Amino acid sequence: MRTTLYSEIPAELRTHCDHVVGEIAQGLPIQHWQKTPDRFARYLTHLTRCSDYDRWTTFVRETEVRQLVVVPAIDFWSACSHHMLPFVGKCWVGYVPDEKFLGLSKIPLLIREIARGFWMQEDLTSTISSRLKELVKPSGVAVHIRATHTCQLLDVGPPIPEMITTELHGLCLHGPAKEEFLGWCR
Amino acid sequence: MRTTLYSEIPAELRTHCDHVVGEIAQGLPIQHWQKTPDRFARYLTHLTRCSDYDRWTTFVRETEVRQLVVVPAIDFWSACSHHMLPFVGKCWVGYVPDEKFLGLSKIPLLIREIARGFWMQEDLTSTISSRLKELVKPSGVAVHIRATHTCQLLDVGPPIPEMITTELHGLCLHGPAKEEFLGWCR
Amino acid sequence: MRTTLYSEIPAELRTHCDHVVGEIAQGLPIQHWQKTPDRFARYLTHLTRCSDYDRWTTFVRETEVRQLVVVPAIDFWSACSHHMLPFVGKCWVGYVPDEKFLGLSKIPLLIREIARGFWMQEDLTSTISSRLKELVKPSGVAVHIRATHTCQLLDVGPPIPEMITTELHGLCLHGPAKEEFLGWCR
Amino acid sequence: MRTTLYSEIPAELRTHCDHVVGEIAQGLPIQHWQKTPDRFARYLTHLTRCSDYDRWTTFVRETEVRQLVVVPAIDFWSACSHHMLPFVGKCWVGYVPDEKFLGLSKIPLLIREIARGFWMQEDLTSTISSRLKELVKPSGVAVHIRATHTCQLLDVGPPIPEMITTELHGLCLHGPAKEEFLGWCR
Amino acid sequence: MRTTLYSEIPAELRTHCDHVVGEIAQGLPIQHWQKTPDRFARYLTHLTRCSDYDRWTTFVRETEVRQLVVVPAIDFWSACSHHMLPFVGKCWVGYVPDEKFLGLSKIPLLIREIARGFWMQEDLTSTISSRLKELVKPSGVAVHIRATHTCQLLDVGPPIPEMITTELHGLCLHGPAKEEFLGWCR
Amino acid sequence: MRTTLYSEIPAELRTHCDHVVGEIAQGLPIQHWQKTPDRFARYLTHLTRCSDYDRWTTFVRETEVRQLVVVPAIDFWSACSHHMLPFVGKCWVGYVPDEKFLGLSKIPLLIREIARGFWMQEDLTSTISSRLKELVKPSGVAVHIRATHTCQLLDVGPPIPEMITTELHGLCLHGPAKEEFLGWCR
Amino acid sequence: MRTTLYSEIPAELRTHCDHVVGEIAQGLPIQHWQKTPDRFARYLTHLTRCSDYDRWTTFVRETEVRQLVVVPAIDFWSACSHHMLPFVGKCWVGYVPDEKFLGLSKIPLLIREIARGFWMQEDLTSTISSRLKELVKPSGVAVHIRATHTCQLLDVGPPIPEMITTELHGLCLHGPAKEEFLGWCR
Amino acid sequence: MRTTLYSEIPAELRTHCDHVVGEIAQGLPIQHWQKTPDRFARYLTHLTRCSDYDRWTTFVRETEVRQLVVVPAIDFWSACSHHMLPFVGKCWVGYVPDEKFLGLSKIPLLIREIARGFWMQEDLTSTISSRLKELVKPSGVAVHIRATHTCQLLDVGPPIPEMITTELHGLCLHGPAKEEFLGWCR
Amino acid sequence: MRTTLYSEIPAELRTHCDHVVGEIAQGLPIQHWQKTPDRFARYLTHLTRCSDYDRWTTFVRETEVRQLVVVPAIDFWSACSHHMLPFVGKCWVGYVPDEKFLGLSKIPLLIREIARGFWMQEDLTSTISSRLKELVKPSGVAVHIRATHTCQLLDVGPPIPEMITTELHGLCLHGPAKEEFLGWCR
Amino acid sequence: MRTTLYSEIPAELRTHCDHVVGEIAQGLPIQHWQKTPDRFARYLTHLTRCSDYDRWTTFVRETEVRQLVVVPAIDFWSACSHHMLPFVGKCWVGYVPDEKFLGLSKIPLLIREIARGFWMQEDLTSTISSRLKELVKPSGVAVHIRATHTCQLLDVGPPIPEMITTELHGLCLHGPAKEEFLGWCR
Repeated sequence: MRTTLYSEIPAELRTHCDHVVGEIAQGLPIQHWQKTPDRFARYLTHLTRCSDYDRWTTFVRETEVRQLVVVPAIDFWSACSHHMLPFVGKCWVGYVPDEKFLGLSKIPLLIREIARGFWMQEDLTSTISSRLKELVKPSGVAVHIRATHTCQLLDVGPPIPEMITTELHGLCLHGPAKEEFLGWCR
Repeated sequence: MRTTLYSEIPAELRTHCDHVVGEIAQGLPIQHWQKTPDRFARYLTHLTRCSDYDRWTTFVRETEVRQLVVVPAIDFWSACSHHMLPFVGKCWVGYVPDEKFLGLSKIPLLIREIARGFWMQEDLTSTISSRLKELVKPSGVAVHIRATHTCQLLDVGPPIPEMITTELHGLCLHGPAKEEFLGWCR
Repeated sequence: MRTTLYSEIPAELRTHCDHVVGEIAQGLPIQHWQKTPDRFARYLTHLTRCSDYDRWTTFVRETEVRQLVVVPAIDFWSACSHHMLPFVGKCWVGYVPDEKFLGLSKIPLLIREIARGFWMQEDLTSTISSRLKELVKPSGVAVHIRATHTCQLLDVGPPIPEMITTELHGLCLHGPAKEEFLGWCR
Repeated sequence: MRTTLYSEIPAELRTHCDHVVGEIAQGLPIQHWQKTPDRFARYLTHLTRCSDYDRWTTFVRETEVRQLVVVPAIDFWSACSHHMLPFVGKCWVGYVPDEKFLGLSKIPLLIREIARGFWMQEDLTSTISSRLKELVKPSGVAVHIRATHTCQLLDVGPPIPEMITTELHGLCLHGPAKEEFLGWCR
Repeated sequence: MRTTLYSEIPAELRTHCDHVVGEIAQGLPIQHWQKTPDRFARYLTHLTRCSDYDRWTTFVRETEVRQLVVVPAIDFWSACSHHMLPFVGKCWVGYVPDEKFLGLSKIPLLIREIARGFWMQEDLTSTISSRLKELVKPSGVAVHIRATHTCQLLDVGPPIPEMITTELHGLCLHGPAKEEFLGWCR
Repeated sequence: MRTTLYSEIPAELRTHCDHVVGEIAQGLPIQHWQKTPDRFARYLTHLTRCSDYDRWTTFVRETEVRQLVVVPAIDFWSACSHHMLPFVGKCWVGYVPDEKFLGLSKIPLLIREIARGFWMQEDLTSTISSRLKELVKPSGVAVHIRATHTCQLLDVGPPIPEMITTELHGLCLHGPAKEEFLGWCR
Repeated sequence: MRTTLYSEIPAELRTHCDHVVGEIAQGLPIQHWQKTPDRFARYLTHLTRCSDYDRWTTFVRETEVRQLVVVPAIDFWSACSHHMLPFVGKCWVGYVPDEKFLGLSKIPLLIREIARGFWMQEDLTSTISSRLKELVKPSGVAVHIRATHTCQLLDVGPPIPEMITTELHGLCLHGPAKEEFLGWCR
Repeated sequence: MRTTLYSEIPAELRTHCDHVVGEIAQGLPIQHWQKTPDRFARYLTHLTRCSDYDRWTTFVRETEVRQLVVVPAIDFWSACSHHMLPFVGKCWVGYVPDEKFLGLSKIPLLIREIARGFWMQEDLTSTISSRLKELVKPSGVAVHIRATHTCQLLDVGPPIPEMITTELHGLCLHGPAKEEFLGWCR
Repeated sequence: MRTTLYSEIPAELRTHCDHVVGEIAQGLPIQHWQKTPDRFARYLTHLTRCSDYDRWTTFVRETEVRQLVVVPAIDFWSACSHHMLPFVGKCWVGYVPDEKFLGLSKIPLLIREIARGFWMQEDLTSTISSRLKELVKPSGVAVHIRATHTCQLLDVGPPIPEMITTELHGLCLHGPAKEEFLGWCR
Repeated sequence: MRTTLYSEIPAELRTHCDHVVGEIAQGLPIQHWQKTPDRFARYLTHLTRCSDYDRWTTFVRETEVRQLVVVPAIDFWSACSHHMLPFVGKCWVGYVPDEKFLGLSKIPLLIREIARGFWMQEDLTSTISSRLKELVKPSGVAVHIRATHTCQLLDVGPPIPEMITTELHGLCLHGPAKEEFLGWCR
């Protein structure tokens, strides 16, 4: 939200998109297709652009807090690295802080920054988990994702299959904290 | 379901897709990207291929039937004519038969055949409605679509906006039949 | 429930079923297939057997009653006249009595007796409606059916399409009684 | 979806189906029954046809991932080996990958390929589980099926009984992973 | 609630119940059957006892009130006049007061007093409606009953059929008030 | 469903029921009460009739299956041994097969056969459990019943109390299988 | 919320409450009953105290607005004028403004101020409606209340009956606005 | 239900209630307040009257039963010992029988008899638990109460706070039986 | 989303915010309050900044479409012009196109652009409606908003009151289209 | 509720708020903005005012009670210490009493008193927990908060992220009591 979305579209990419659209849009109404190469190139550019956001504010804890902190059901979207088509879902994040908290707004921002790109959901889940470990060095961390993959429509047909992945570390790998976290994911 | 999905992919289109992928997949793991140009070209080919299905079986009614027949919540998918990205939803179809019935299986097949292509949802809805009028010449016809458009992610962000469109004709345009039909759509 | 289900299976039918099973069960485990011809022939016999139930008890009304009487969501099953495969659903029946009531138990029995057989759902709905008119000569009658058709699996695939049909007569054809009846069907 | 459904119907089977229909369709309206032998023979052929699909794409994992991957509520249908009638339901699949992932689309395809045939649900569940073990050699695997069996209508009557079966292996047999998996099945 | 439930059981009835139980309880464990004749006779006595409750307090309205007053979902039970077995359900009562209100507690009491007895549901509904008209002489009155009839188990089997009856008079017979009342019944 | 329901009503019982009805139906409308003695005697006869059904088909397992098999929410009815009045509910059955499976249809049939009779719910639950152990000699068995008892109306009033009973044996007595089974009962 | 709740309790009332408690609390544990007379007198004082709140801020409309404004499901409590016991519920308020709006916060405050006192629900509903008419002179006004009355426990027993009352005026008395308003109340 | 509710109201209490009402009902409409002293005195008398019900029928078990028996969600009401105002809720009771069962109807009756009186919810819960232990000497017992306290309206305001209390003993104190019981309470 | 959020904060406003925070943050932990003046000034700047977005793409219709187009439940936020505190809710937009469609993404963008600012909800609703009329000159337009206003916490307390406003014009003012639109808002 | 809300607003704060409003309200309609500086200053004063409530009534337990006492879903609001904007949510409190109970009304009052102020949710949760430990010295204590933070709108956009925090001590830190408490929070 805080970045100018219209970063420059690489000229080469723009040209190739033009060619693709040229192949498929023959005879289709011009008012709809005129800007399609731009739109599709912008979509791809957005997905491949490097993230340069770096203000992942953390706080030092002031009281004796060792509770599980959960930010549930964060809407995000990504794209499938096999088909270049979107997948859309929700992400649950939990961590048991040790010395540091992450500012509340940073958690959805982190998810969205990482998700922007081409991913298999299994790798996206573990990458988010690793990044959280670096940022707050928590006693435990848990990431849960449920998403529907539009790339599956062609192979499997509607309704689109959903996929559920869950990555757990530290205290969150153990029984009670795992149960507590998964309880909020259901 | 009854057609071979792997119709031939046009060579030109395949080449252009190769170029697009070439631009964006540099440095990304080869095991995931190797077949991406094929997959994306297949996706586009599927959407532009002409439908040649023509067995829209109808039956002559044998008893005095003038009831509203509804096939609710048919899963379908289509692609946005502005972004070439999928939109996914459900379609409700209703008609008041006059002389002919359409075989039950033909209704979902018809929706899926027409939806395959590039569409604005408003036009898709009225096109399904027109096609049903041609096929069964009913006393009334009603088509209702609710879909989420992944093409909107970039402009509006998650959660993806949903869109609701409804096309009504003949007896279904009038109060009671309209109410009856919309009652099943909620 | 009050008839002996095991009416005699016609010998011819039994033989033909044996042949069908013979074609498809080669190499399959004998403990499962031994009785299959009997079971399938029994299924078909049940569907073609004439109903001889005739105790459709009615009562003469004793007070001034012109209310809508509804028996909702009666479980029933039938078979598709095009594929010989089951369809399964629920039936809602309503009527505005004039001089006579039908005993409560008779309404589910009537639905199940008529549904046993091979039907298109559109015709089943209007046949139930007609039969009720003969039996209680009501001021109005309404029949609503929602069913899923397993015969559609092959053509359309899972999830199985549902079909909704509604037949209305007399007072139930008019706005208020129609709305009242459909209100209980939702 | 990617196979031509209209494989050839064996002539013998077609003839026997003709005889069966000849027995039961006497006096019934010709417009509905004309193609019934074809349709029923096609249904049986579909169920007995050998699957020759063999592109069960897997990927080698690139990061340290040992999460439980779940694909929930896959719609499928099969047929009962005792009555030749359809049963319809949903299948949940989970596995803890070791070295390999199975492509997301392959999981619903695998369920549907295996389910096509004549089965007892208990055997179908363990067969899917075994096939997954062969394909991805996971650290754990879990398969859960809930289905309604139309073959039970004649014996038990509506509403049709549902059946729940669950097969668990490796890490998924143990408390925490079992609980996690079953938690997504409820 | 305000009457002594244990009114005297007629000696004759007690004797006949003894004989009935004598026939069916042979060989069954004495600790359960010893008091059964008493219990069943008490059940029947309760149902045939004349109601003598007569404090149906009403109030004269003090402000200009012509609203619809509704007391929803009152639990009640009754017994079927054909099988002597219980039916159990909920009753919705509405009225548009003219000069008088009925005390709130009187409405559930009235339903329960009238329902105690042997009834067809259709007659119970119109009798409650008539009694309300006598008591408050309202501008409109509406009574809606939904009940399940255990007497139907033997004839129809589980699940027990539900029955819906609705009696409307005066202003409540007209569109808007009817819709308003039925809206609260759903 | 496969037995003629109209077994002969013992003459003595019929006579006693006639006397009971004679006591309570004085002055009540003849069209409703004429057949009541027959209906009530039939009800009692049905409950005391010995079950002679004996085709509890089992199958020898062919693959390595040690999963929990569950048939959920089977509708049944029974009668209370203290008041002779119906109680109505649902039964969940689970077992871990050892060598044998019970045919799916046999499970609801078994519940209904046993439930027909006069029971305390606690005893009904353990009797079903014991019968299953005899039939399939499973590694574990679990039976769960939830029912509402109309016999409680007179003592407790509406709403009727519900009762929950659960009988567990073998592997199903242990933590994980118990949890798995109860998870499907909620 | 903006008034000091602890207005002075009249000495006489305090004394009488002391006597009432003296009668019933004999032998009961002193730690619970010591302050009961104070608490009960405070409860009664609160209910009889005159409201002196008078800042019912309104705004003159600046644009052409003739929409229905609704504040739904406001929690309130009151006491029954027949038993002095609490009744508790929710109130829906709607109005079609003419020249003036009422500040949003004033609507819940108004409901709570009026409800504090002893009321029959029918009169409370129409009094709120009248007060709104005075304050904003709207083109239409609608008030809807659903409440449960603890005063009914003794007479009717649990579950406590709920009561629904609705007062409509001006444009809100007509079909479309009435339907719109009631639609938000369900 | 089986006791005459109108036990004699102590004259002293009646007089004091008269005085309380005299203080607060000045100027209020006489038709509503005339019987208020009687009604309020009756309410208090009901709460302080000693229970003399003593027919807590138990049965000796005949089969090997050690299941958890649960009677869920029993509606009850009580009054707060600090404010004399009602609190209303539901109670769940469970026990593992040893030698004796308690008759089903006795459980709701026991709850209601004990709850009649002035209570803190914490003490009510443990008192019900203790009384059950005396009556059936079970291997385990569990009592769970959820109630809303109208006495809290004045201090906390709407919505009324709910309170949850749970008392567990014997086998029900241990993990599995505790989980099983609490599972039915949710 | 497409604008740089960090427009310059006016220096004066920044200074005044500094003073406000200076008054209230004395003695509070510095790590939390250091950036508060910036954050609050940014919040206010965002709300007062002029929108300069102007690409409200429309399309000329190509087929005969006169259906109701609805974009439901768009998340938005705004701030109260009386307290400067946020209110948060959802907006439903519907229109019957005449000659032009508005691009799907433009509808949520329009809502969010207009809502950014200080508003009374009543005025926000009619302003959105007017803006839509200018942009697409539709045959009918409908806007529905439900929001919770945090500014009400201090005056009314939790739970925060919700407010519902609805503005209708042209064809959407009439019965059928109004009902259709409101049906999707419930 | 029992404190005069209108404590004096510090003159300095009032002046600074005036300046802030002066900056942003230029050209906006005077009728809405006139009292805004007062309202905003009152909001800030309320949040910084010291709580002086001190009647945290406790009771000595009279019976052997060691149950978990839970007060669920208490509505509260607070403000974010980083943005000075409201956050709103629900708080669940549980404790296992040792010698003392806290009066029921005191629990919501305690939550609201503490929450009034500027907080990070993590610290608010542990502060409530500590305060409860001081007041009742329980064997265990548990505090669970779910809240939505309007301060996040600017950074993350709608829908507002929710945050879940849970603090557990003593017996409530252990498995069974933790599970029991969290079970009521879901």
